[in-house]
Amino acid sequence: MSEPLKVALLGCGVVGSQVVRLLTEQADDLAARVGAPLELAGVAVRKLGRKRDVAVPESLLTTDAHALVTRDDIDIVVEVIGGIEPARSLILAAMAGGKSVVTANKALLAEDGATVHAANRADLYFEAAVAGAIPLIRPLRESLAGDRVHRVLGIVNGTTNYILDKMDSTGASFTDALEEAQSLGYAEADPTADIEGFDAAAKAAILAGIAFHTRVTAADVHREGITEISAADVASAKAMGYVIKLLAICARSDDGRSVGVRVHPAMIPRSHPLAGVREAYNAVFVEAESAGRLMFYGAGAGGAPTASAVLGDLVAVARNRLAGTRGPSESVYADLAVHPVGETVTRYHVSLDVADKPGVLATVADVFAQQDVSIQTVRQEGRGDDAQLVLVTHRASDAALSLTVERLRDLDIVRAVASVMRVEGDEAP
Amino acid sequence: MSEPLKVALLGCGVVGSQVVRLLTEQADDLAARVGAPLELAGVAVRKLGRKRDVAVPESLLTTDAHALVTRDDIDIVVEVIGGIEPARSLILAAMAGGKSVVTANKALLAEDGATVHAANRADLYFEAAVAGAIPLIRPLRESLAGDRVHRVLGIVNGTTNYILDKMDSTGASFTDALEEAQSLGYAEADPTADIEGFDAAAKAAILAGIAFHTRVTAADVHREGITEISAADVASAKAMGYVIKLLAICARSDDGRSVGVRVHPAMIPRSHPLAGVREAYNAVFVEAESAGRLMFYGAGAGGAPTASAVLGDLVAVARNRLAGTRGPSESVYADLAVHPVGETVTRYHVSLDVADKPGVLATVADVFAQQDVSIQTVRQEGRGDDAQLVLVTHRASDAALSLTVERLRDLDIVRAVASVMRVEGDEAP
Repeated sequence: MSEPLKVALLGCGVVGSQVVRLLTEQADDLAARVGAPLELAGVAVRKLGRKRDVAVPESLLTTDAHALVTRDDIDIVVEVIGGIEPARSLILAAMAGGKSVVTANKALLAEDGATVHAANRADLYFEAAVAGAIPLIRPLRESLAGDRVHRVLGIVNGTTNYILDKMDSTGASFTDALEEAQSLGYAEADPTADIEGFDAAAKAAILAGIAFHTRVTAADVHREGITEISAADVASAKAMGYVIKLLAICARSDDGRSVGVRVHPAMIPRSHPLAGVREAYNAVFVEAESAGRLMFYGAGAGGAPTASAVLGDLVAVARNRLAGTRGPSESVYADLAVHPVGETVTRYHVSLDVADKPGVLATVADVFAQQDVSIQTVRQEGRGDDAQLVLVTHRASDAALSLTVERLRDLDIVRAVASVMRVEGDEAP
Repeated sequence: MSEPLKVALLGCGVVGSQVVRLLTEQADDLAARVGAPLELAGVAVRKLGRKRDVAVPESLLTTDAHALVTRDDIDIVVEVIGGIEPARSLILAAMAGGKSVVTANKALLAEDGATVHAANRADLYFEAAVAGAIPLIRPLRESLAGDRVHRVLGIVNGTTNYILDKMDSTGASFTDALEEAQSLGYAEADPTADIEGFDAAAKAAILAGIAFHTRVTAADVHREGITEISAADVASAKAMGYVIKLLAICARSDDGRSVGVRVHPAMIPRSHPLAGVREAYNAVFVEAESAGRLMFYGAGAGGAPTASAVLGDLVAVARNRLAGTRGPSESVYADLAVHPVGETVTRYHVSLDVADKPGVLATVADVFAQQDVSIQTVRQEGRGDDAQLVLVTHRASDAALSLTVERLRDLDIVRAVASVMRVEGDEAP
């Protein structure tokens, strides 16, 4: 058995306290698996003397994170503070000192991954940044390294999935479902990052980058949240055999030369495996040329699952350190263009409030035809002032659909475009 | 870019020909991901001049596999022959020469993993040995290296899943479903390894070994095949809301000190995610202390999916070779005992042909009670000569249940024990 490897932990909240617990409780197993003990040598926190979920020896706590990560005896820095700063500066300082870094920081990697990857002199592992304990980064980066990924599609935000699942199963409004999620701890007091899709967009950028060997940042991701989803939308989807989910979709274009990355609510058939992902669970499909369609499912957040992913990475970087080697570094050689959302091709569900007059359907259909958007099904609901046309299109570009919707709004006979939503996952799973 | 790494391929059948295709078609991507080209330097086959699925330059083909694996210029040996010999001798010869080895050989690893692991001087990677393209070995060995796995439960044989799925969806007999599977290429002409559970048992041994850091061989696995499953069993399960699947189950005992590994048909509730795994697909649940329940799903066999797994490993060992390092080696430090199947605790479905007389249930219930096997539900079907008692027990040990069944057979009022089957997956998923 080698000398202990010294670990500095930045942050001791929900995830950090579980990391401390596991480092203590599993110490013997970890040492056997690494070939050396992992010694927790310091924990940087914002305030001392706070009550924590786990007992941390007073002597290990410090508020001077910078001093901790630059200590000569530290081998590995685990960052679970989150956010851009001070996390970035601390990681860069640690890297400058040759430390290995394990982080769960999706925001930093998605916004400024280039900087941290460039500064990396040892290992940078970040399985915990996407979908909690579900192994996704390692399978994409290593298991599928000999394959060609076509598409990654999944549910990567537990909060929004909880809210949409409640709306679907109980008929609740968005506001009521959000309040329930908050009261149960599934949503934060300020839920913006989740419900506006920022969290999912950061994860999509990270997954796309690895899947397509191309640098993708959060700014490249087309992002729509779920705040506009109404109980009526959910009910209407349900009536058609669909369920609304917030999806992250990273896809190679048909010619393979560019990729599109988007996060938005979409309708998927109730028979699709993702439709069965309930509550705060996550699930991701990866479609690769030779491997076919793979699915990964599990708890996408939470202290213990995220800590499990952190510990897996910790064991890996510790082994690498002992062997004097490094894991795979960032792979962006393919350098594909990220195409704008207008070039995305998918199907759409469009619901229009219309005047109940003869010829309405003909006029509406003509607008779709002018933009080359082919209609698959159309259904009229209600009569008189309540008349509604519900259309589902064949595959069309986002740009063509947007133009169609613009023209529809200009029609006198269309009182309102009640909703426009993408339809995904209709291919046989 | 470094000098090319030279790869020797042993076997050019369904999987091998796909490996050749990918090495050719993806050459540029592979070189970029590895940091050096991967050069196919030789392919050992049984017979020259045979028609193959892929064009292999004549000059690369050889029937002298031993000469190929001991060639000085070979860096990596990919073994996709299968079976114990000559695969083992060839792998050992390659290892003696310091080559890295990638293999899909579940039989060899499950029967004599100790020998090949001990001889390994570079890397031994074998993702393709279990569940085709589904990343399972790497997640268990690396992603969950900081966690404590409690149970691995899944469908790891596509042939038997195809047969059972057909029986379930069409009411076909085992024989008819097997014939259909054979005509479609899902089952081999000699289907013994699949339908008797040998293939699944080998995979279970490999998964258990990695999950529990303990050496487990095929001989340690309790194995039952699916040949005794009748259309009536399937129909009866269906009527109760269950479906019959061939499961591989690797579980830590309640006290954590031993593990049980078994492969057998079992009834699972139709609401369980594994119940929805159709045709020849595979799916595996991994339950770990911190990560919770993870599921991995995909194509468990086939040339291209298996080749995808081989290529992923090939990239990994090539990177390691270039870096002058090795991946994680066999981890068996926990050295847990593998307990006999009698100590397994689960639930049972027991179907008895009985005489339709007053007092039958009381007598039968008394036999269960004597062995401390508690009955959850009991149902009487038919009357007179066709009377049947269908019982589902609470959790009981396999030993107690076996003794119960023995005693039941001795009863005059029991004309036959029509079927005994384990019930799994009743806990909320």
